[in-house]
Amino acid sequence: MKADVVPTLNELKIEQLLGRTIVVIDVLRSTSTIISAFNRGCQEIIPVETCGQAYSLMDANTYLVGERYCKKIQGFDFSNSPTELIQQNLAGKRIVLSTTNGTGAILKAKKGSTVLLGAFLNGSAVAEELYRLKRDLTLLCAGTRNEFALEDFLCAGFILSQLSVRYSSVELGDYALAAKAAYLQLQHEIEKIMPTTTTGKRLAQMGLHDDLFYSAQLDQSDLVPYLKEESIIVRSYS
Amino acid sequence: MKADVVPTLNELKIEQLLGRTIVVIDVLRSTSTIISAFNRGCQEIIPVETCGQAYSLMDANTYLVGERYCKKIQGFDFSNSPTELIQQNLAGKRIVLSTTNGTGAILKAKKGSTVLLGAFLNGSAVAEELYRLKRDLTLLCAGTRNEFALEDFLCAGFILSQLSVRYSSVELGDYALAAKAAYLQLQHEIEKIMPTTTTGKRLAQMGLHDDLFYSAQLDQSDLVPYLKEESIIVRSYS
Repeated sequence: MKADVVPTLNELKIEQLLGRTIVVIDVLRSTSTIISAFNRGCQEIIPVETCGQAYSLMDANTYLVGERYCKKIQGFDFSNSPTELIQQNLAGKRIVLSTTNGTGAILKAKKGSTVLLGAFLNGSAVAEELYRLKRDLTLLCAGTRNEFALEDFLCAGFILSQLSVRYSSVELGDYALAAKAAYLQLQHEIEKIMPTTTTGKRLAQMGLHDDLFYSAQLDQSDLVPYLKEESIIVRSYS
Repeated sequence: MKADVVPTLNELKIEQLLGRTIVVIDVLRSTSTIISAFNRGCQEIIPVETCGQAYSLMDANTYLVGERYCKKIQGFDFSNSPTELIQQNLAGKRIVLSTTNGTGAILKAKKGSTVLLGAFLNGSAVAEELYRLKRDLTLLCAGTRNEFALEDFLCAGFILSQLSVRYSSVELGDYALAAKAAYLQLQHEIEKIMPTTTTGKRLAQMGLHDDLFYSAQLDQSDLVPYLKEESIIVRSYS
Protein backbone atom coordinates (compact mmCIF):
# COMPACT_ATOMS: atom_id res chain seq x y z
CA MET A 1 0.00 0.00 0.00
CA LYS A 2 1.49 3.34 -1.13
CA ALA A 3 0.55 6.66 0.45
CA ASP A 4 1.17 10.12 -0.96
CA VAL A 5 0.32 13.55 0.40
CA VAL A 6 -0.49 16.38 -2.00
CA PRO A 7 0.11 19.62 -0.09
CA THR A 8 -1.87 21.97 -2.38
CA LEU A 9 -4.37 21.54 -5.22
CA ASN A 10 -1.81 23.08 -7.61
CA GLU A 11 0.47 20.08 -7.10
CA LEU A 12 -2.18 17.44 -7.80
CA LYS A 13 -1.47 15.13 -10.74
CA ILE A 14 -4.01 12.87 -12.42
CA GLU A 15 -2.00 9.72 -11.53
CA GLN A 16 -2.43 10.59 -7.86
CA LEU A 17 -6.22 10.18 -8.32
CA LEU A 18 -6.82 7.28 -10.71
CA GLY A 19 -7.35 3.91 -9.00
CA ARG A 20 -6.65 5.36 -5.57
CA THR A 21 -8.52 6.17 -2.40
CA ILE A 22 -8.50 9.94 -1.94
CA VAL A 23 -8.91 11.69 1.39
CA VAL A 24 -9.81 15.35 1.03
CA ILE A 25 -8.67 17.39 4.04
CA ASP A 26 -9.80 20.96 4.74
CA VAL A 27 -9.50 21.27 8.50
CA LEU A 28 -10.37 25.01 8.48
CA ARG A 29 -13.15 24.50 7.85
CA SER A 30 -15.03 22.48 5.19
CA THR A 31 -14.29 18.92 6.23
CA SER A 32 -14.66 19.78 9.93
CA THR A 33 -18.03 21.37 9.11
CA ILE A 34 -19.16 18.33 7.08
CA ILE A 35 -18.28 15.90 9.89
CA SER A 36 -20.10 18.13 12.41
CA ALA A 37 -23.22 18.24 10.23
CA PHE A 38 -23.35 14.44 9.98
CA ASN A 39 -22.82 14.22 13.74
CA ARG A 40 -26.07 16.19 14.09
CA GLY A 41 -28.05 13.83 11.89
CA CYS A 42 -27.69 15.42 8.45
CA GLN A 43 -28.60 12.90 5.71
CA GLU A 44 -26.77 14.23 2.68
CA ILE A 45 -24.50 17.11 1.65
CA ILE A 46 -24.23 18.40 -1.91
CA PRO A 47 -20.98 20.29 -2.58
CA VAL A 48 -21.35 23.00 -5.23
CA GLU A 49 -18.96 25.60 -6.58
CA THR A 50 -21.24 28.59 -7.16
CA CYS A 51 -23.94 30.37 -5.15
CA GLY A 52 -26.23 30.07 -8.20
CA GLN A 53 -25.97 26.27 -8.10
CA ALA A 54 -26.76 26.38 -4.37
CA TYR A 55 -29.87 28.58 -4.77
CA SER A 56 -31.19 26.30 -7.53
CA LEU A 57 -31.15 23.34 -5.11
CA MET A 58 -33.16 25.06 -2.34
CA ASP A 59 -36.23 23.32 -0.93
CA ALA A 60 -38.06 22.97 2.40
CA ASN A 61 -35.81 20.13 3.62
CA THR A 62 -32.55 21.83 2.61
CA TYR A 63 -30.18 24.20 4.38
CA LEU A 64 -27.72 26.29 2.39
CA VAL A 65 -24.33 26.38 4.11
CA GLY A 66 -21.31 28.29 2.93
CA GLU A 67 -18.82 31.09 3.03
CA ARG A 68 -16.73 33.25 0.81
CA TYR A 69 -13.51 34.53 2.36
CA CYS A 70 -14.58 33.31 5.82
CA LYS A 71 -17.99 35.07 5.82
CA LYS A 72 -21.46 33.55 5.50
CA ILE A 73 -22.95 33.96 2.02
CA GLN A 74 -25.95 36.28 1.85
CA GLY A 75 -29.23 34.35 1.86
CA PHE A 76 -27.58 31.18 3.18
CA ASP A 77 -28.80 29.54 6.41
CA PHE A 78 -25.42 28.94 8.04
CA SER A 79 -21.77 29.72 7.51
CA ASN A 80 -19.13 27.03 6.89
CA SER A 81 -18.68 26.72 10.66
CA PRO A 82 -18.41 23.43 12.58
CA THR A 83 -19.39 25.09 15.87
CA GLU A 84 -22.44 26.70 14.26
CA LEU A 85 -23.65 23.39 12.78
CA ILE A 86 -22.93 21.27 15.85
CA GLN A 87 -25.61 23.31 17.66
CA GLN A 88 -28.36 22.56 15.11
CA ASN A 89 -30.75 19.66 14.89
CA LEU A 90 -30.10 18.45 11.34
CA ALA A 91 -31.93 15.10 11.55
CA GLY A 92 -33.03 14.07 8.06
CA LYS A 93 -31.90 17.38 6.54
CA ARG A 94 -30.05 17.92 3.30
CA ILE A 95 -27.28 20.53 3.11
CA VAL A 96 -26.00 22.30 0.02
CA LEU A 97 -22.42 23.45 0.73
CA SER A 98 -20.29 26.03 -1.06
CA THR A 99 -16.94 27.18 0.36
CA THR A 100 -13.78 29.00 -0.78
CA ASN A 101 -11.41 26.00 -0.79
CA GLY A 102 -12.94 22.76 0.42
CA THR A 103 -15.72 22.18 -2.09
CA GLY A 104 -13.32 22.83 -4.98
CA ALA A 105 -10.96 20.18 -3.60
CA ILE A 106 -13.81 17.68 -3.20
CA LEU A 107 -14.93 18.21 -6.79
CA LYS A 108 -11.32 17.87 -8.06
CA ALA A 109 -10.95 14.57 -6.19
CA LYS A 110 -13.86 12.95 -8.04
CA LYS A 111 -11.60 10.98 -10.39
CA GLY A 112 -10.42 8.87 -7.44
CA SER A 113 -11.81 5.36 -6.87
CA THR A 114 -13.22 6.37 -3.49
CA VAL A 115 -13.27 9.89 -2.02
CA LEU A 116 -13.32 10.17 1.77
CA LEU A 117 -13.42 13.37 3.80
CA GLY A 118 -11.05 13.76 6.71
CA ALA A 119 -10.18 16.18 9.50
CA PHE A 120 -8.67 15.97 12.97
CA LEU A 121 -12.24 15.30 14.19
CA ASN A 122 -12.40 11.88 12.48
CA GLY A 123 -8.76 11.03 11.66
CA SER A 124 -8.65 7.59 13.30
CA ALA A 125 -11.94 6.54 11.67
CA VAL A 126 -10.50 7.58 8.29
CA ALA A 127 -7.34 5.55 8.99
CA GLU A 128 -9.53 2.55 9.83
CA GLU A 129 -11.36 2.91 6.51
CA LEU A 130 -8.08 3.25 4.58
CA TYR A 131 -6.87 0.08 6.24
CA ARG A 132 -10.11 -1.70 5.30
CA LEU A 133 -9.87 -0.56 1.66
CA LYS A 134 -6.17 -1.59 1.35
CA ARG A 135 -5.65 0.46 -1.77
CA ASP A 136 -2.95 3.02 -2.66
CA LEU A 137 -4.04 6.37 -1.30
CA THR A 138 -3.63 10.10 -1.71
CA LEU A 139 -4.23 12.58 1.09
CA LEU A 140 -5.28 15.76 -0.70
CA CYS A 141 -4.80 18.95 1.33
CA ALA A 142 -7.27 21.63 0.21
CA GLY A 143 -5.04 24.50 1.40
CA THR A 144 -6.17 28.07 1.58
CA ARG A 145 -6.71 30.26 -1.46
CA ASN A 146 -4.33 28.14 -3.52
CA GLU A 147 -1.69 28.28 -0.78
CA PHE A 148 -0.38 25.59 1.54
CA ALA A 149 -2.24 25.25 4.86
CA LEU A 150 -0.19 23.73 7.68
CA GLU A 151 -3.24 22.39 9.54
CA ASP A 152 -4.24 20.23 6.54
CA PHE A 153 -0.69 18.85 6.23
CA LEU A 154 -0.54 18.02 9.96
CA CYS A 155 -3.93 16.33 9.71
CA ALA A 156 -2.59 14.22 6.82
CA GLY A 157 0.29 13.30 9.13
CA PHE A 158 -2.16 12.39 11.90
CA ILE A 159 -4.11 10.06 9.58
CA LEU A 160 -0.86 8.44 8.37
CA SER A 161 0.35 7.94 11.94
CA GLN A 162 -2.96 6.24 12.77
CA LEU A 163 -2.77 4.14 9.61
CA SER A 164 0.74 2.96 10.49
CA VAL A 165 -0.54 1.73 13.87
CA ARG A 166 -2.97 -0.52 11.97
CA TYR A 167 -0.75 -1.50 9.06
CA SER A 168 3.02 -1.47 9.32
CA SER A 169 3.94 -1.80 5.66
CA VAL A 170 2.59 1.44 4.20
CA GLU A 171 5.10 2.85 1.70
CA LEU A 172 5.21 6.61 2.28
CA GLY A 173 6.16 9.09 -0.44
CA ASP A 174 8.43 12.05 0.39
CA TYR A 175 5.61 14.46 1.30
CA ALA A 176 3.91 11.71 3.33
CA LEU A 177 7.11 11.11 5.32
CA ALA A 178 7.38 14.86 5.97
CA ALA A 179 3.73 15.20 7.02
CA LYS A 180 3.88 12.25 9.42
CA ALA A 181 7.12 13.51 11.00
CA ALA A 182 5.78 17.06 11.37
CA TYR A 183 2.61 15.75 13.01
CA LEU A 184 4.51 13.50 15.43
CA GLN A 185 6.71 16.44 16.44
CA LEU A 186 3.74 18.78 17.00
CA GLN A 187 1.03 16.34 18.11
CA HIS A 188 0.72 17.80 21.60
CA GLU A 189 0.51 21.38 20.34
CA ILE A 190 -2.18 21.21 17.64
CA GLU A 191 -4.59 23.47 19.54
CA LYS A 192 -1.80 25.98 20.19
CA ILE A 193 -0.62 25.97 16.58
CA MET A 194 -4.06 26.34 15.03
CA PRO A 195 -4.34 30.16 15.48
CA THR A 196 -0.76 30.65 14.18
CA THR A 197 -1.17 29.14 10.70
CA THR A 198 -2.02 31.27 7.65
CA THR A 199 -5.71 30.25 7.74
CA GLY A 200 -5.81 30.21 11.53
CA LYS A 201 -4.57 33.80 11.79
CA ARG A 202 -7.23 34.90 9.32
CA LEU A 203 -10.04 33.20 11.27
CA ALA A 204 -8.68 34.47 14.60
CA GLN A 205 -8.73 38.04 13.25
CA MET A 206 -12.42 37.55 12.48
CA GLY A 207 -13.09 36.33 16.03
CA LEU A 208 -13.71 32.73 14.97
CA HIS A 209 -11.63 31.20 17.78
CA ASP A 210 -14.30 28.62 18.63
CA ASP A 211 -13.97 27.03 15.21
CA LEU A 212 -10.17 26.90 15.59
CA PHE A 213 -10.25 25.11 18.92
CA TYR A 214 -13.13 22.82 17.97
CA SER A 215 -11.45 21.74 14.72
CA ALA A 216 -8.20 20.94 16.57
CA GLN A 217 -9.84 18.12 18.53
CA LEU A 218 -8.83 14.58 17.62
CA ASP A 219 -11.32 11.78 17.02
CA GLN A 220 -14.52 13.43 18.19
CA SER A 221 -16.39 11.42 15.57
CA ASP A 222 -16.34 7.90 14.13
CA LEU A 223 -18.10 9.04 10.96
CA VAL A 224 -16.32 8.90 7.61
CA PRO A 225 -18.18 10.99 5.04
CA TYR A 226 -17.59 9.92 1.44
CA LEU A 227 -18.57 11.02 -2.01
CA LYS A 228 -21.26 9.04 -3.83
CA GLU A 229 -21.89 10.53 -7.25
CA GLU A 230 -22.92 14.16 -6.58
CA SER A 231 -23.53 13.75 -2.84
CA ILE A 232 -21.58 13.33 0.35
CA ILE A 233 -23.05 10.64 2.59
CA VAL A 234 -21.80 8.89 5.67
CA ARG A 235 -20.64 5.55 6.92
CA SER A 236 -20.35 4.92 10.63
CA TYR A 237 -17.95 2.73 12.63
CA SER A 238 -19.81 2.84 15.94
CA MET B 1 12.50 38.50 10.18
CA LYS B 2 10.16 36.28 8.13
CA ALA B 3 11.17 32.85 6.83
CA ASP B 4 9.45 30.83 4.11
CA VAL B 5 10.27 27.46 2.64
CA VAL B 6 9.46 26.75 -1.02
CA PRO B 7 9.28 22.95 -1.36
CA THR B 8 9.62 22.73 -5.17
CA LEU B 9 10.61 25.14 -7.93
CA ASN B 10 7.04 24.93 -9.31
CA GLU B 11 5.74 26.65 -6.19
CA LEU B 12 8.18 29.58 -6.29
CA LYS B 13 6.59 33.04 -6.59
CA ILE B 14 8.45 36.20 -7.53
CA GLU B 15 7.57 37.87 -4.19
CA GLN B 16 9.46 35.09 -2.42
CA LEU B 17 12.64 36.27 -4.17
CA LEU B 18 12.57 40.08 -4.35
CA GLY B 19 14.33 41.83 -1.45
CA ARG B 20 15.01 38.54 0.31
CA THR B 21 17.95 36.33 1.15
CA ILE B 22 17.54 33.07 -0.75
CA VAL B 23 19.11 29.78 0.29
CA VAL B 24 19.18 27.23 -2.52
CA ILE B 25 19.20 23.67 -1.19
CA ASP B 26 19.94 20.60 -3.30
CA VAL B 27 21.32 18.08 -0.83
CA LEU B 28 21.49 15.28 -3.44
CA ARG B 29 23.74 16.50 -4.80
CA SER B 30 24.51 19.95 -6.24
CA THR B 31 24.89 22.04 -3.12
CA SER B 32 26.74 19.24 -1.28
CA THR B 33 29.10 19.00 -4.28
CA ILE B 34 29.65 22.78 -4.36
CA ILE B 35 30.52 22.91 -0.65
CA SER B 36 32.89 19.96 -1.06
CA ALA B 37 34.65 21.65 -4.01
CA PHE B 38 35.25 24.83 -2.00
CA ASN B 39 36.51 22.71 0.90
CA ARG B 40 39.20 21.44 -1.48
CA GLY B 41 40.33 24.92 -2.47
CA CYS B 42 38.22 25.64 -5.55
CA GLN B 43 38.20 29.39 -6.31
CA GLU B 44 35.03 29.84 -8.32
CA ILE B 45 32.11 27.79 -9.68
CA ILE B 46 30.08 28.82 -12.73
CA PRO B 47 26.61 27.21 -12.84
CA VAL B 48 25.31 26.67 -16.38
CA GLU B 49 22.19 25.03 -17.76
CA THR B 50 23.46 23.34 -20.91
CA CYS B 51 26.45 21.19 -21.82
CA GLY B 52 27.14 23.57 -24.71
CA GLN B 53 27.58 26.48 -22.30
CA ALA B 54 29.92 24.32 -20.21
CA TYR B 55 32.14 23.31 -23.16
CA SER B 56 32.44 26.96 -24.27
CA LEU B 57 33.94 27.86 -20.87
CA MET B 58 36.67 25.17 -20.93
CA ASP B 59 40.28 26.23 -20.31
CA ALA B 60 43.43 24.82 -18.70
CA ASN B 61 42.44 26.02 -15.21
CA THR B 62 38.86 24.75 -15.42
CA TYR B 63 37.20 21.45 -14.56
CA LEU B 64 33.83 20.58 -16.03
CA VAL B 65 31.60 18.96 -13.41
CA GLY B 66 28.09 17.69 -13.96
CA GLU B 67 25.51 15.00 -14.46
CA ARG B 68 22.33 14.26 -16.28
CA TYR B 69 20.00 11.83 -14.53
CA CYS B 70 22.68 10.93 -11.97
CA LYS B 71 25.40 10.07 -14.53
CA LYS B 72 28.55 12.01 -15.42
CA ILE B 73 28.24 13.97 -18.66
CA GLN B 74 30.45 12.70 -21.49
CA GLY B 75 33.65 14.74 -21.81
CA PHE B 76 33.28 16.22 -18.31
CA ASP B 77 36.05 15.81 -15.71
CA PHE B 78 33.90 14.81 -12.76
CA SER B 79 30.33 13.89 -11.94
CA ASN B 80 28.17 15.97 -9.60
CA SER B 81 29.49 13.95 -6.67
CA PRO B 82 30.65 15.39 -3.33
CA THR B 83 32.71 12.28 -2.52
CA GLU B 84 34.42 12.43 -5.92
CA LEU B 85 35.35 16.11 -5.52
CA ILE B 86 36.43 15.87 -1.88
CA GLN B 87 39.29 13.61 -3.06
CA GLN B 88 40.68 16.14 -5.57
CA ASN B 89 43.12 18.97 -5.08
CA LEU B 90 41.15 21.92 -6.45
CA ALA B 91 43.40 24.73 -5.16
CA GLY B 92 42.95 27.78 -7.40
CA LYS B 93 40.77 25.85 -9.86
CA ARG B 94 37.60 27.05 -11.55
CA ILE B 95 34.66 24.66 -11.97
CA VAL B 96 31.86 24.88 -14.51
CA LEU B 97 28.85 22.98 -13.11
CA SER B 98 25.77 21.64 -14.88
CA THR B 99 23.27 19.37 -13.11
CA THR B 100 19.70 18.12 -13.54
CA ASN B 101 18.09 20.11 -10.72
CA GLY B 102 20.49 22.22 -8.68
CA THR B 103 21.91 24.59 -11.27
CA GLY B 104 18.40 25.41 -12.53
CA ALA B 105 17.35 26.33 -8.99
CA ILE B 106 20.44 28.51 -8.52
CA LEU B 107 19.74 30.39 -11.75
CA LYS B 108 16.05 30.84 -10.80
CA ALA B 109 17.06 32.28 -7.42
CA LYS B 110 19.08 35.11 -9.03
CA LYS B 111 16.34 37.71 -8.45
CA GLY B 112 16.94 37.46 -4.69
CA SER B 113 18.99 40.13 -2.85
CA THR B 114 21.56 37.56 -1.80
CA VAL B 115 21.72 33.92 -2.91
CA LEU B 116 23.42 31.47 -0.54
CA LEU B 117 23.92 27.75 -1.09
CA GLY B 118 23.07 25.36 1.71
CA ALA B 119 23.17 21.66 2.54
CA PHE B 120 23.44 19.54 5.68
CA LEU B 121 27.23 19.91 5.31
CA ASN B 122 27.14 23.66 6.10
CA GLY B 123 23.69 24.26 7.67
CA SER B 124 24.87 26.01 10.84
CA ALA B 125 27.20 28.31 8.90
CA VAL B 126 24.26 29.24 6.64
CA ALA B 127 22.10 29.95 9.72
CA GLU B 128 24.87 32.18 11.09
CA GLU B 129 24.95 34.14 7.81
CA LEU B 130 21.14 34.48 7.76
CA TYR B 131 21.30 35.83 11.29
CA ARG B 132 24.01 38.30 10.27
CA LEU B 133 22.01 39.50 7.24
CA LYS B 134 18.78 39.93 9.29
CA ARG B 135 16.60 40.04 6.20
CA ASP B 136 13.43 38.11 5.30
CA LEU B 137 14.47 34.83 3.76
CA THR B 138 13.34 32.05 1.48
CA LEU B 139 14.72 28.54 1.64
CA LEU B 140 14.35 27.22 -1.90
CA CYS B 141 14.33 23.43 -2.20
CA ALA B 142 15.59 22.35 -5.63
CA GLY B 143 13.70 19.04 -5.53
CA THR B 144 14.20 16.26 -8.00
CA ARG B 145 12.97 16.38 -11.59
CA ASN B 146 10.27 18.90 -10.66
CA GLU B 147 9.17 16.77 -7.70
CA PHE B 148 9.49 17.33 -3.97
CA ALA B 149 12.68 15.94 -2.38
CA LEU B 150 12.38 15.16 1.32
CA GLU B 151 16.10 15.62 2.01
CA ASP B 152 15.98 19.25 0.82
CA PHE B 153 12.94 19.97 3.01
CA LEU B 154 14.60 18.41 6.07
CA CYS B 155 17.74 20.43 5.38
CA ALA B 156 15.60 23.60 5.27
CA GLY B 157 14.24 22.52 8.66
CA PHE B 158 17.78 22.00 9.97
CA ILE B 159 18.83 25.51 8.90
CA LEU B 160 15.67 27.01 10.49
CA SER B 161 16.28 25.12 13.74
CA GLN B 162 19.84 26.49 13.81
CA LEU B 163 18.58 30.00 13.00
CA SER B 164 16.06 29.85 15.85
CA VAL B 165 18.88 29.04 18.28
CA ARG B 166 20.53 32.34 17.26
CA TYR B 167 17.44 34.49 16.84
CA SER B 168 14.23 33.70 18.69
CA SER B 169 11.83 35.97 16.82
CA VAL B 170 11.86 34.46 13.34
CA GLU B 171 8.31 34.43 11.94
CA LEU B 172 7.87 31.09 10.17
CA GLY B 173 5.43 30.58 7.29
CA ASP B 174 3.35 27.38 7.12
CA TYR B 175 5.86 25.38 5.07
CA ALA B 176 8.70 26.62 7.30
CA LEU B 177 6.87 25.42 10.43
CA ALA B 178 6.33 22.03 8.77
CA ALA B 179 9.97 21.72 7.65
CA LYS B 180 11.37 22.62 11.07
CA ALA B 181 9.01 20.19 12.85
CA ALA B 182 9.80 17.37 10.40
CA TYR B 183 13.54 17.94 10.88
CA LEU B 184 13.31 17.99 14.68
CA GLN B 185 11.36 14.72 14.62
CA LEU B 186 13.85 13.01 12.28
CA GLN B 187 17.12 14.72 13.25
CA HIS B 188 18.73 11.55 14.62
CA GLU B 189 17.78 9.48 11.56
CA ILE B 190 18.97 11.63 8.64
CA GLU B 191 21.57 9.10 7.51
CA LYS B 192 19.02 6.28 7.74
CA ILE B 193 16.36 8.24 5.81
CA MET B 194 18.65 9.39 3.02
CA PRO B 195 18.51 6.13 0.96
CA THR B 196 14.69 5.95 1.39
CA THR B 197 13.73 9.25 -0.26
CA THR B 198 12.79 9.49 -3.95
CA THR B 199 16.23 10.83 -4.93
CA GLY B 200 18.01 8.66 -2.38
CA LYS B 201 16.48 5.45 -3.76
CA ARG B 202 17.54 6.45 -7.29
CA LEU B 203 21.15 7.10 -6.21
CA ALA B 204 21.24 3.92 -4.12
CA GLN B 205 20.11 1.89 -7.15
CA MET B 206 23.10 3.32 -9.03
CA GLY B 207 25.46 2.30 -6.23
CA LEU B 208 26.12 5.87 -5.08
CA HIS B 209 25.78 5.10 -1.35
CA ASP B 210 28.93 7.05 -0.46
CA ASP B 211 27.35 10.29 -1.69
CA LEU B 212 24.19 9.58 0.35
CA PHE B 213 26.04 9.04 3.61
CA TYR B 214 28.50 11.85 3.03
CA SER B 215 25.74 14.38 2.22
CA ALA B 216 23.82 13.41 5.38
CA GLN B 217 26.59 14.75 7.63
CA LEU B 218 25.86 17.95 9.57
CA ASP B 219 28.23 20.89 9.69
CA GLN B 220 31.31 19.41 8.08
CA SER B 221 32.10 22.85 6.67
CA ASP B 222 31.97 26.47 7.79
CA LEU B 223 31.93 27.71 4.20
CA VAL B 224 28.87 29.51 2.81
CA PRO B 225 29.02 29.65 -0.98
CA TYR B 226 27.07 32.54 -2.51
CA LEU B 227 26.20 33.85 -5.93
CA LYS B 228 28.08 36.91 -7.19
CA GLU B 229 26.85 37.84 -10.66
CA GLU B 230 27.47 34.72 -12.78
CA SER B 231 29.76 32.96 -10.30
CA ILE B 232 29.54 31.11 -7.03
CA ILE B 233 32.27 32.13 -4.61
CA VAL B 234 32.82 31.53 -0.95
CA ARG B 235 32.86 33.25 2.38
CA SER B 236 34.36 31.52 5.39
CA TYR B 237 33.48 31.68 9.09
CA SER B 238 36.60 29.98 10.41
